[in-house]
Formats: sequence, C-alpha cells, structure tokens
Amino acid sequence: MTMQRYTQFGLAAAAMIALPQMGLAQDAAPGFDEIGPYIMTTLLFCMAGFLVFFMAAGFAMLEGGLVRSKNVTIQMTKNIGLYSIAAIMYWLMGFNLMYPGEFNGYVGSFFVPTTLDPVGVAAADAALDYASVGSDFFFQLVFVAATASIVSGALAERIKLWPFLIFVVLLTGVMYPISGSWQWGGGWLSEAGFSDFAGSTVVHSVGGWAALAGAIILGPRLGKYGKDGKVNPIPGSNLALATLGTFILWLGWFGFNGGSQLAMGTVGDVSDVSRIFANTNMAAAAGAVTALILTQVMYKKPDLTMVLNGALAGLVSITAEPLAPTLFGALWIGAVGGVIVVLTVPMLDKFKIDDVVGAIPVHLFAGIWGTIAVVFYNSDANLGTQLMGIAAYGVFTFVASLIVWVILKAVMGIRVGEEEEINGLDVSELGMEAYPEFSKG
Amino acid sequence: MTMQRYTQFGLAAAAMIALPQMGLAQDAAPGFDEIGPYIMTTLLFCMAGFLVFFMAAGFAMLEGGLVRSKNVTIQMTKNIGLYSIAAIMYWLMGFNLMYPGEFNGYVGSFFVPTTLDPVGVAAADAALDYASVGSDFFFQLVFVAATASIVSGALAERIKLWPFLIFVVLLTGVMYPISGSWQWGGGWLSEAGFSDFAGSTVVHSVGGWAALAGAIILGPRLGKYGKDGKVNPIPGSNLALATLGTFILWLGWFGFNGGSQLAMGTVGDVSDVSRIFANTNMAAAAGAVTALILTQVMYKKPDLTMVLNGALAGLVSITAEPLAPTLFGALWIGAVGGVIVVLTVPMLDKFKIDDVVGAIPVHLFAGIWGTIAVVFYNSDANLGTQLMGIAAYGVFTFVASLIVWVILKAVMGIRVGEEEEINGLDVSELGMEAYPEFSKG
Amino acid sequence: MTMQRYTQFGLAAAAMIALPQMGLAQDAAPGFDEIGPYIMTTLLFCMAGFLVFFMAAGFAMLEGGLVRSKNVTIQMTKNIGLYSIAAIMYWLMGFNLMYPGEFNGYVGSFFVPTTLDPVGVAAADAALDYASVGSDFFFQLVFVAATASIVSGALAERIKLWPFLIFVVLLTGVMYPISGSWQWGGGWLSEAGFSDFAGSTVVHSVGGWAALAGAIILGPRLGKYGKDGKVNPIPGSNLALATLGTFILWLGWFGFNGGSQLAMGTVGDVSDVSRIFANTNMAAAAGAVTALILTQVMYKKPDLTMVLNGALAGLVSITAEPLAPTLFGALWIGAVGGVIVVLTVPMLDKFKIDDVVGAIPVHLFAGIWGTIAVVFYNSDANLGTQLMGIAAYGVFTFVASLIVWVILKAVMGIRVGEEEEINGLDVSELGMEAYPEFSKG
Repeated sequence: MTMQRYTQFGLAAAAMIALPQMGLAQDAAPGFDEIGPYIMTTLLFCMAGFLVFFMAAGFAMLEGGLVRSKNVTIQMTKNIGLYSIAAIMYWLMGFNLMYPGEFNGYVGSFFVPTTLDPVGVAAADAALDYASVGSDFFFQLVFVAATASIVSGALAERIKLWPFLIFVVLLTGVMYPISGSWQWGGGWLSEAGFSDFAGSTVVHSVGGWAALAGAIILGPRLGKYGKDGKVNPIPGSNLALATLGTFILWLGWFGFNGGSQLAMGTVGDVSDVSRIFANTNMAAAAGAVTALILTQVMYKKPDLTMVLNGALAGLVSITAEPLAPTLFGALWIGAVGGVIVVLTVPMLDKFKIDDVVGAIPVHLFAGIWGTIAVVFYNSDANLGTQLMGIAAYGVFTFVASLIVWVILKAVMGIRVGEEEEINGLDVSELGMEAYPEFSKG
Repeated sequence: MTMQRYTQFGLAAAAMIALPQMGLAQDAAPGFDEIGPYIMTTLLFCMAGFLVFFMAAGFAMLEGGLVRSKNVTIQMTKNIGLYSIAAIMYWLMGFNLMYPGEFNGYVGSFFVPTTLDPVGVAAADAALDYASVGSDFFFQLVFVAATASIVSGALAERIKLWPFLIFVVLLTGVMYPISGSWQWGGGWLSEAGFSDFAGSTVVHSVGGWAALAGAIILGPRLGKYGKDGKVNPIPGSNLALATLGTFILWLGWFGFNGGSQLAMGTVGDVSDVSRIFANTNMAAAAGAVTALILTQVMYKKPDLTMVLNGALAGLVSITAEPLAPTLFGALWIGAVGGVIVVLTVPMLDKFKIDDVVGAIPVHLFAGIWGTIAVVFYNSDANLGTQLMGIAAYGVFTFVASLIVWVILKAVMGIRVGEEEEINGLDVSELGMEAYPEFSKG
Repeated sequence: MTMQRYTQFGLAAAAMIALPQMGLAQDAAPGFDEIGPYIMTTLLFCMAGFLVFFMAAGFAMLEGGLVRSKNVTIQMTKNIGLYSIAAIMYWLMGFNLMYPGEFNGYVGSFFVPTTLDPVGVAAADAALDYASVGSDFFFQLVFVAATASIVSGALAERIKLWPFLIFVVLLTGVMYPISGSWQWGGGWLSEAGFSDFAGSTVVHSVGGWAALAGAIILGPRLGKYGKDGKVNPIPGSNLALATLGTFILWLGWFGFNGGSQLAMGTVGDVSDVSRIFANTNMAAAAGAVTALILTQVMYKKPDLTMVLNGALAGLVSITAEPLAPTLFGALWIGAVGGVIVVLTVPMLDKFKIDDVVGAIPVHLFAGIWGTIAVVFYNSDANLGTQLMGIAAYGVFTFVASLIVWVILKAVMGIRVGEEEEINGLDVSELGMEAYPEFSKG
C-alpha cells in the first residue's frame, strides 16, 4: 500500500465530495457498538504499550543512578540490550508460548513466531471483541522486558555482560512465557481461580525470583559485607537520575495497570481504566510517603532511595488488583508496600544477598504482598489459591533460574574478575566510561 | 471481578461466536452519540492526566539542575514527597472541597474523601455528558501537584524538609482547593465572569504567591546578596538536567491545557483540543525565542536558563486562554511572557527576594499576564473581572501562605542553620549526596 | 468562549436531566461512521504529535551526552532554540509551502501562515474524512524539528550559535517544506510513484544531507584527526544522558511512524497503527542487537554508542515503510541499519568528515537504505523510482545547504575561533557552564 499524505486544501475538497457518498454508505457502515470497542481497545494497547515501553528507560535511569559511576556504561548496555533481546525473543517464541490458545494448561508450543493481522484488516476478519494482534503483541512484549530489567538491577556491578544477556534470552523467550501461560494464557492457575490483574506475581515476582537466584549464585560485590559482619553502604552515583527513573516507571505504570483492563470501548471499561489510574497513583504515593515517614522515624533522616523504592513497592503492591480497591484500599495496600521495602532491604543484607538497587524487596516481596492483598477487595479471590499461585511461580522461576545460572557459571563464568570489578565494568568489559571527564572524589 | 487475559486464538474463536449475538443485541446497544463523548472525554483525562503527572518529573529535573549539587538529593526528596502528599490530600479533602457541587460560592465541605464510580459502572449510572469520576479526579489531582512544585523550586537550598512538606499538606488539601472552588467549582468568581481556562491564575499564580510569601519569610540564601548590594549569581549544577526538565514540562503542558477542554467526544471538542495543542506549542516557542534574542541583545550572550524559563513563561501565559487565540495570538502572548521573565528575574533580585529557579517570574508574573491577555481573544472576558480574579487569588493565597509560613517559622523553624546551608542540605538534612563520586570544582 | 469546569455533583444532576433530551436528539446526531474517523484521527495526531515533540528532548539528551562537558550548555541552547524556531517558521510559511493543495508540483506559495479551524468547528465545516487542521499542523510541525536536530548533532562542538540558528530558519521554513511538498504535498515525486511512508528520505535523509554539507564546510574539530592520519576518539561526557536520549527517541518514533498512518478511525486503520508500532519496535531492537554483536565481534568489546546508534539506525531504516513488512521483515531491515552504522562511522572518519554524534550514518545512510528497502515488502514501489527520489532529495538538499553554509561562512563566519573551541563553546559563546561544580578529569 503506497502511503501518501493528504494535501491540506485538496483534502477539504475531497471531504466535500466524499460527504454525500458517506451518506449513501451509511446503512452498511458498521456502528460504534460493532467496531468501537475494537478501535478503543487497540488504541488502549498502543498507548499503554508505549508507556510501558518507556519503563525500559525508567529502569535504565534508576539503575544507572544507583550504581557507582564506574559501572554506568555497562548498566546502560545491559538495559538497552535486554529490552532489544526481549523484543526479538518474544516475537520468535514467547508470545505464542504464553498465549497458546487451546493447550494442556502447563506448556504450549515452542518456536511459533508471531504473525500480525494483515495490512488494513477488514472488520469481518478482525477480533472485534478484543483488539488487533499487533497491539496485543506490543503490549504483552513490553511487559516481559520489565521482568528482565528487574534482574539487571539486582545483579549490577559484578555480572558479566554476555552471560546476563543469555539469561535474558531464556527468561524472555522461555521461562516467563511458560509460567505466564499458566495464568494469562488460560492455563492451570487461571482454571484454579488464581487472580493477578496486571502481574504482581506473573511479572514482578518472576523478575524478583530470577534476580534472587542470580544474586545467590553470583555472590555480593567486593567490600559490601565486611568480615566483622558489617554492611558497607555503597552509595549510588547519581540520585537525580535515579529519581528520574522512578518518575518514568511511575508514568509507565499507568499503562502497565491501566492497559491490563484489556478493554476500553464501553462506559464500564473506560471508567475502569480511569479507576485503575487513580488507584495506581494512590498506591505509589502512599508507598513513597510511608517510606519517607518510616525512615525519618527509624533513622532520624529520610532516605531518598527508600522513598523511591517505596513508591515502586506501592506500585508493585497494587498491580495484582488495581481495579477493585477503593482509593483508601489503594492507599493502605501501597503503604504496606512501602513498609515492606524499608524493613526488608536490611533483612536481605543480613543474609548477605547483595541486591544493588533493592529490586528484590520492591518486586518480589511487595509482589507477594500485592498478590495476597487481592483477597481484601476481590471477593472472587481466596487466600489459598493466591498462596498456591505465589508458590507455583516462585518454585518454577527460582529453580529454573538457579539451574540456568549454575550452568552459565560452569560453562562461561558469570562474574568478572576481582581486578575488573574494582576498576569497574565500564573499563574492563567495555573500555568506555560513562562520565570520562568527571574526576572521582 | 476476576481479571483474566484472553488467549490469542481462543479469542478469535470467541469473536466468531460473539458476532451474531452482537448483531441481535444491536438494537439495544447505545450508539456513539450516547456514550462516545463519555468514553472520549474519560480517555482525554487519562491521557492528559499522565502527561501532567509527568510534569512532576519535569519540575524535579528543572529544580535539580538549577540548584547546586549539594542540594540535589533534598530537592528530589521534596519533589517526590510533595507529589505524593498532594495525591493523598486531594483525595482526603481537596477534590470535594474544590468541586463541592451546590455551595455558598466561597468554601465547600471539608473532609469528604473522593469516592470513585463503581467497578464496571453501567451507562445508566455514569455521567454520560462528562467523564468518569476516576478520570476527573486523576486529572484534577495532577494539577494541584504542579502548584506545590512551584513553591519547591523558589524556596530551594535553604528550607527544611518537614516544614516545607507541612506547607504542602495545607496548600494542596485546603488553600488551593478553596480558592480553586471559586472558579472551577462554580463559585463566586465563576459567577462573576472571571475566565481562566487551564489555570494561569488558579494554578500557576497560586503557586507563585505561595512561593513569594515563603521567599520573603525565609530570606535569601547565604551569599546571594553581597553587603554592597551586589547580586552574586549562583549557577545551577546541571543544565542538561534543567533542559530535560523544561522539555518534560512542555510535554506535560499539552495535557495541562489540552485536557482542560474537558471534552473530546465531538468534532468541535476534539478540534479544539488540537487547536489548544498548537497554540500551547506556539506560545512556548515564542517565549523561548524571545528570551534567546533578548538576552543576546541585553547581555551580548544568550542565557540558557532564561531561554528555558522563557519557554515556561510562554506556556504559563497561554494557559488562561489557549483556545481562543489564533496562532499569531499565541505567538505574541507567549513572547510577552518571555520578555516578562527576562525583565523580572533581575527585578526580584533588587528586592532581595531569592527565587532559586525563577519560579515567581515564570508562574506568578507570566500567570498574571496570561490572565489579563484573555481579554484580547475572548470576548466574554473583561479586564475588570480579570483583574478582580487576579487580586482575589493573590490576596487570599499570599495572606494565607504568609500566615502559615509565619506559624511554621515560630513553631518549628523553617530554615536550616548556617553551617547546614553551607555544607548543603543533602548532607545536613539527609546524610546522602546526589553525586558522591564527582568531586566539586 | 468562557471555560468553566463542571462541578462534580452538579454534573451528575445535569446528566440525569440531559439523558432524555439526548434520546430525543438521537435521530439528528451524527453516528460514529460519520464523525468517528475524524475524532480518532485528530486524536492520533495529537498523541503522535506529543510523542514526536518529545523527540526534541531525546535529541537534546543524546547530543548533550555525546559532546564534551564544555559544550553541553550550547548544545542545549541549540536544541531548544531550533525546536522553537522550527515551530514559528513552520507556522509562518513552512506548512502551507509543504502542503499547498493544487500546485505545480515543485514549489508552492511562500508566506502563507497557517490558519486553524475555528473554535468549536461544526461537523459540516470540518474535514470529516481526515482530521482537524490544528492536529495536522502540530503533527507535521514536530517532524520538521527532527530534521533540524539531526544537523545540530553532527555539527556540534565547533559551530557558532547564531549561524546555526539562521540555517535552521531556512531549513525549516524553506528547504524542508519545498522538498517535502514533492512527496507529501502531492508533488512530482508523489506523482512519479515514490514511496516514503514516514520519512526515511523526506525527513531523515534531508537532515543528514544538510548535516553533511555543513560538516564539510565547517571542517573537523581540533584534534579529531592527527597529522599522521590517526583518528582520535573524543568520548562523550555523559553516556547515561545519551542512553536516555535514545530511549526518548525510540518512544517518540511510535508517534513518528504510527501517526504517519494518518488515520485511526476504522478497524483497518487502527490495526495498521498497531502493526506499525510492532514493526517500529522490532526494527529498533534488531538494530541495537546487531550493533551489539557486531562491535563485540569486530572490536572484542561491545560499544554502547554504537548500540544506541544501531537502535536509531534500525528506526530510521523502517521509517520509509513501517507498515507493509512482517515482523521478520522489520527485523532484518532494522538489522541492516545496525550494520550500516557500525561500518560507516569509521568510513566517515576516513574522509575526515567529523560527525560528532554519528548523525550522518544514522539518518542519511540508514535513511537511504530504508527508502530502498521499501521495494521488498511494498509491491507498489519500484527500485528505480526509489533511487530517483533519494537522488532528488540528496541533490536539492545538499546543494541548497552547501550554498547556505558557504554564504553564512562568508558573511558572518560559522566556526568559533581556535581558542574558543579549546575552552569550549559554553564559556566562549554563552559564559555559562553546564556542570560548573564537577571538576574535569
């Protein structure tokens, strides 16, 4: 189809000619009740999709701000690399593995690349009660990238580039799609009544479990834990960047949760999308304020990195059920998320699990909490099934990740050498500093 | 309501089954003329809302770039804190105080938290000639946060964290909603014929007045004004960040002004939204170019911070009436905004009012100008009423803010100690530097 | 028109009263088939427009991150300046020169400023088969700014501010609109069957040709090329910023290509928009991964700046035809773009053409490739016509740019003095450093 932009005045003339014909064609033309929902939902996926896409930038900035300046270039490389790999793997096999249609409920078919609707698809050939394949694929694709970003943050400052990217290939092409199919593909957990609206478990906990497995196998950064059991804080190099990243993630979350309504073409659906926006925002705000007050009370000084992670934990907490709660519900669910982050970041350090950006507290612990919290406002959910789902995703992802990390470690090594780590991965792995002109204090 | 994502192929099958049923249901289904405006306007509020939300990041980056590096962490903390507090306060009381329905025209009811539409609201129960409560609440909420951000910028580098946040509680929960109800809640100024489309006065001047009161009570930063009357420039630490912030604010303003059309479901309304986009963009461009040329002429060298503030002043100037002007009107209204900034930044310094980021010239002075400029293109507006509105908002906000600042100063002190200010608030208030590795020149 | 926000409760009451009247009015009200496409396409332009607007920030961050810290303030000034100038020039003459309606196919009328639709335009007066003038103007305007940004990156670190901005005046007001009219204005190339969906040639190559002409006239930066023929790499000062810029550009490209569908109100059109989103994303991902692997293979270490430019080259490559290809087509077209960047960046250095950010490989070379690649998936396109179009845009833009650069050089000089260049343009041209507190290593 050749594309040509209309000329401005030629267009007006065309409009005048076209109008009567439109009048004649009116009887046959499909009404809003027929095609409106398809158009609006496809638009929802495009819009929500670009917002969630932008979360890739949010993760990159958050992580780039929380690592030391000697590891910023590698963190940027990992983030743009993981997003790109996710995009390719999800096309090659992930999407149809996750949404296999009729299947055994546990694993669908591998290696079925995604095929889009034909150009200019006719209404008769389109999924009129849902949305275009292109928009659905794009929206689902940007989700899987978020999962991989979670891993990238936790394992920063010591993992080699290529083993990390190979892990991303498997996570985004195989592991996430398989476990995702259990719930969103209509598999066994969905049949069992598990409830996870936008992915506190399906997306965030999965990223968290993969990160936890990696952090255990990889071990902590040099100097993070002293011989005397002392925990040495390693401050991030650029908190303005980390704050920007958090705001971008918050922005993207409107798409993450709002788009998961999966429909926008009726009064009830569009109202629900807006309800989700309001609740999502409230949970983030509550998580941030809670972390602000709690760190003031506990440490006498507010801790910005905790406030940022508090907002993110609030967002993760509301993700399993952003629709049903009242605004007050969103507030307290998000606030509990903020509490979780402030309390569990030091806890991980007790176990000498070194999570550079706090990704495990934010995405795994708050993700578990959010999945449990579904039962308070969604009467169709019950605690037993929620716990079963949490456990299923946990066991599968943690074990599968552990196996992959162990194999990668045995085959090619996953950690840079001691000297490389001290010099920073930017120089040792890439030969390129992020801030070559700013001397280090 | 349990949420479950459709499977891709299952969906297509469902569509085939569903189609005939849809045909049968067609007679009863509401047409676009009935539900289209509600859907489109709700979407407008969601979209404009996330754009205006992102302005919180814009303010944070602008302010973080214009303060010294020793005060960046505190500025980030203030900005994410104020947005979060605004979100909670506006739910708790602000929204219903500002939009009280039938009321005396001066003050509505306190402590009426916002209640959203029920999940999956039926068309019969929805405000079909407007939009969902969730979208309306979200859109109005992000506006109040902008007001608080204005204050945060002006008072940077010397105000304590908690008194500032307490002020934000009162500004976003009480002061802004009360004065806002006078106009947008259908109160006395609205009755009197005052005109302020998207808030040059209702939002921006209010922020500016609150900032001005604070700057007077707080006093200037140490070393800003020499004993000999000399004004010492204190350069910002990161002009790339400040530029990013300005671009983000410009982006957000399309939502700020475009969303204020409050309707998108008719030919006239959606065309108006686009008209507002074009005018808003033009005013910003004109403000920037004007400041660029004017600083070249006046100082022989263009001043980037003036160009950034010129763009913002152009945006504030067109905010009171972004619809009615022609593109040429938007150009000259925005250009005057740019002139105002360049001329009034030094003027404030003469009065030894220390506004760190130029928020008072941009939001207060250009806001007043924009509110006056309404009369040139909107025949329903008259100068007397516009001036009355400007004065009413000024007196109320300035006096109320002054009282709050004075009380806060008396009760807990609002300014950090001299040594703390010299060392920077990041270390003294938070114990956390924003750029710990970059040595200071 | 006085604007007043509805009160929340007053509104619900109004809705109840309004509903029966709406029922009565139903017969006369236009249906979705009549006004839906106009509303949706106008919305598409507004949405795509703000995404493409944000690319101005993306270019600014990318360029600000790739120049040395002594040239960041000037780069920010150039970028916000060029966007603002483009906005004014495109209103003053560019838009109607590019879309002249009936014309000779080569040059339309100069100095016809853009006039928007009237406020609240009636359906009978609107271009119902297209979109509002405001949205169309805004969408086209943000495109021209992208062209100018390309030039700004290539010529960084040595060109004077004002000659650059004067070039932008001519590029955005005259050169780009004239050549644009040949294709998108319905001119001779469009008649000849040239195909360029969203502007690989019309936008990106044009920017690239203008940059190439400028780089030749301007000469390389001091010290870039040693006397012995050695190429000295000059590392960028902030790769986090450059990465952010790339992500912002990628985000904006969804609007750039998706909006170029120019319609969203039918099943086929909205599905096509989503198809374009998916393809655009795939091409970018493929370009990034290709550059990642290729630099690993060629240099043993991946090169982040090449990965960033690889993603951008993938985006430029798919821009001429983002709709017709399959996802696999988008993958390999984008991948070739990545190869082109990695191979041609060193090639330019052989010719001692100093392109600071790699804009010429990304926008010109990948733009040519993308325009050729149209023939693989779009059966209406043929190679001969594509090559003719590429050549036509190349000759016109390169020659016209060369003339303008030569005249500017003769009249006012385009390059800063040697000492100014060494000290950095921030100090010499603006007297304002971007990072005054961070000492240089």
